[in-house]
Amino acid sequence: MHHLTKSAAETWPAHLGTLIGQGVAAIDTPALVVDLDAMERNLATMAAFAQQHGVKLRPHAKMHKSATLARLQMQAGAVGVCVQKTSEAEALAAGGVDDIYISNEVIAPHKLQRVAALARALAARGGRLAIAVDSLHGVQALAQALGPGENLIDVFIELDVGQNRCGVAEPADVLPLAQAITQQPALRLAGLQAYNGRAQHLRSVAERRAALDAVLTRVQQARALVEAAGLSLPLVTGAGSGTFGLEAASGVFGELQAGSYLFMDADYARNDLDPAQPRFEHALFVKSQVMSASATHVVVDAGHKSHAIDSGLPSVHGLALECTGCNDEHSTLRAATADGALPARGEVLWLIPGHCDPTVNLHDWMIGVRGGLQAGTVEQLIRVSARGALS
Amino acid sequence: MHHLTKSAAETWPAHLGTLIGQGVAAIDTPALVVDLDAMERNLATMAAFAQQHGVKLRPHAKMHKSATLARLQMQAGAVGVCVQKTSEAEALAAGGVDDIYISNEVIAPHKLQRVAALARALAARGGRLAIAVDSLHGVQALAQALGPGENLIDVFIELDVGQNRCGVAEPADVLPLAQAITQQPALRLAGLQAYNGRAQHLRSVAERRAALDAVLTRVQQARALVEAAGLSLPLVTGAGSGTFGLEAASGVFGELQAGSYLFMDADYARNDLDPAQPRFEHALFVKSQVMSASATHVVVDAGHKSHAIDSGLPSVHGLALECTGCNDEHSTLRAATADGALPARGEVLWLIPGHCDPTVNLHDWMIGVRGGLQAGTVEQLIRVSARGALS
Repeated sequence: MHHLTKSAAETWPAHLGTLIGQGVAAIDTPALVVDLDAMERNLATMAAFAQQHGVKLRPHAKMHKSATLARLQMQAGAVGVCVQKTSEAEALAAGGVDDIYISNEVIAPHKLQRVAALARALAARGGRLAIAVDSLHGVQALAQALGPGENLIDVFIELDVGQNRCGVAEPADVLPLAQAITQQPALRLAGLQAYNGRAQHLRSVAERRAALDAVLTRVQQARALVEAAGLSLPLVTGAGSGTFGLEAASGVFGELQAGSYLFMDADYARNDLDPAQPRFEHALFVKSQVMSASATHVVVDAGHKSHAIDSGLPSVHGLALECTGCNDEHSTLRAATADGALPARGEVLWLIPGHCDPTVNLHDWMIGVRGGLQAGTVEQLIRVSARGALS
Repeated sequence: MHHLTKSAAETWPAHLGTLIGQGVAAIDTPALVVDLDAMERNLATMAAFAQQHGVKLRPHAKMHKSATLARLQMQAGAVGVCVQKTSEAEALAAGGVDDIYISNEVIAPHKLQRVAALARALAARGGRLAIAVDSLHGVQALAQALGPGENLIDVFIELDVGQNRCGVAEPADVLPLAQAITQQPALRLAGLQAYNGRAQHLRSVAERRAALDAVLTRVQQARALVEAAGLSLPLVTGAGSGTFGLEAASGVFGELQAGSYLFMDADYARNDLDPAQPRFEHALFVKSQVMSASATHVVVDAGHKSHAIDSGLPSVHGLALECTGCNDEHSTLRAATADGALPARGEVLWLIPGHCDPTVNLHDWMIGVRGGLQAGTVEQLIRVSARGALS
């Protein structure tokens, strides 16, 4: 099993440093807590899955935004990580991560200058930067920023495979971009970005399989058109924690980008489990305390400034309580059954966030606990290296 | 007009410092931008309103979390500010704010030790700390933390006035707490906390007035019971940016806690304007850039890690575009009319966040612009002093 190590750059504030070695009770509320045992089991499960299926694993680090956890994933076999933002890539590179894919479009010339500088810096230490494009505009701006060098960056063409967000609209739109990329010496045509975020959260297995069938059809159409023109798309990359079992079995995808598997959130737990995928455990929690109690409900001291609610309200670990509403600094809980008991004022409750990615982004540090949430000990503080890295 | 000044503690990072004096075009995307002219008009409008109505103004600083803006509000006549968290109070006190009300319950003994230390520190420099309670447990824990001193902290009893969140459930529950507080020499019975957050966002004036009628009934019941027992509730405090005109005219409320008026968000703009209240301008924006464009929609580089969507999606400043969805790092926009035009890739769009409070909490700095969003100049960087201050 891989163990977390503290990097020189990750110096924590004094009031947090005193927590290390103390019991869980010493953690102030609200706080973002990682169950290290559960996280490491998730890490190992996913690494084994990718290896068994002969696909690369490049977890999405937009989820944890942590150089420490990115390195841990790579020590466990990941080929690198994805990010969504230039500034995230910079933060992870500063934390020792060498192989980074910005799986998103960058348009602003001054930001592409930063992309170019990072590509050179990573190459100089034996690493590699990749990026996505979905327009000729994007290809040209990227090439201009990178200048006259050769093979400086890997470029993936994003195809819209059902999310209706970024990406070229049609499989036939991929070829002109592939041709444009191969005409630019600084750019290496690395393959196709094909990710359907909506498909991840369809609740039934049948719905997710149907959505993935549509993804595969479009990917194969694009690839056939590119190959008919004498070019190739070496790697198809995509997949999230809701569907990666389907991409892995497809014979089409060579790389999986799932990220949430490491922590598992309440939203993903609402999916029916696909037998094609292993089960993951909740490993990310917000420790909270009951600060107000009435005959009908209790209120804890953690609201949506502590845990993101864009993908639904949090669930409560181990107790038959239902969250019925969150405000900025409060979450209201009621008994899940008519005769259920309510916790007392002062009691500790562990919330399982609705969505792990934006939850982590609300915190500067994650508190890593060994030995469980009841009797465990604080072992490690994990810096959210790219918290607030938006640009 | 009051002008922002840089405090010694608010040293900005080098890459932001170079922005000062530059045009708006130099601001990287996404970024949180304050239109200083609009903000200062809102500041003056609210200060004048409170003065005209003979009520105190104690704006809620959970909204901006900025010591700079809290001081600006106090220079304009506010008696102090509210916060929701002990750590927010600590951050603002460190930034020179002397009169702070934690309008929320604190239960944990170690956190109440921090409350006690802050109460003494503020008193030592001529300031004052206040806090809310809603239980005998809370009164006793607070008194224990403060120890044997006299008149160390102002205490407001929170009454649930329709939000069904914190606060004692019934007006009759206020008296026993009032009696308990007066038995503790360290605590001063300061009055009643009566805030209905739900009422703020009822769209029609009639609905908000009906909700406020219910608030006033409960407040008057509580006050009558306390006075019949020979005690008094010197101050009733509450109100938000949706209803403050009603509280101000009530003759019952002596202090207004509205906070969002300073920035105005898209959610408050969806309220019908009550003629009892002045109109405020949008002063908080997320500068974003179109990063992907199709025939049907465009995508900007700011998602809900940049602007909170708990109270609805953002609106788009000055353009007939509708936001149809936000993900972590993307927002998708479509033309608001069937024949409407879409902006081009690379174009700048200004989003008006759905909810200003949690939006500000996502950022370390707000970029203050003078002279408008089109031709203005960066004048000031405003630190979000209490960003991530959750405990």
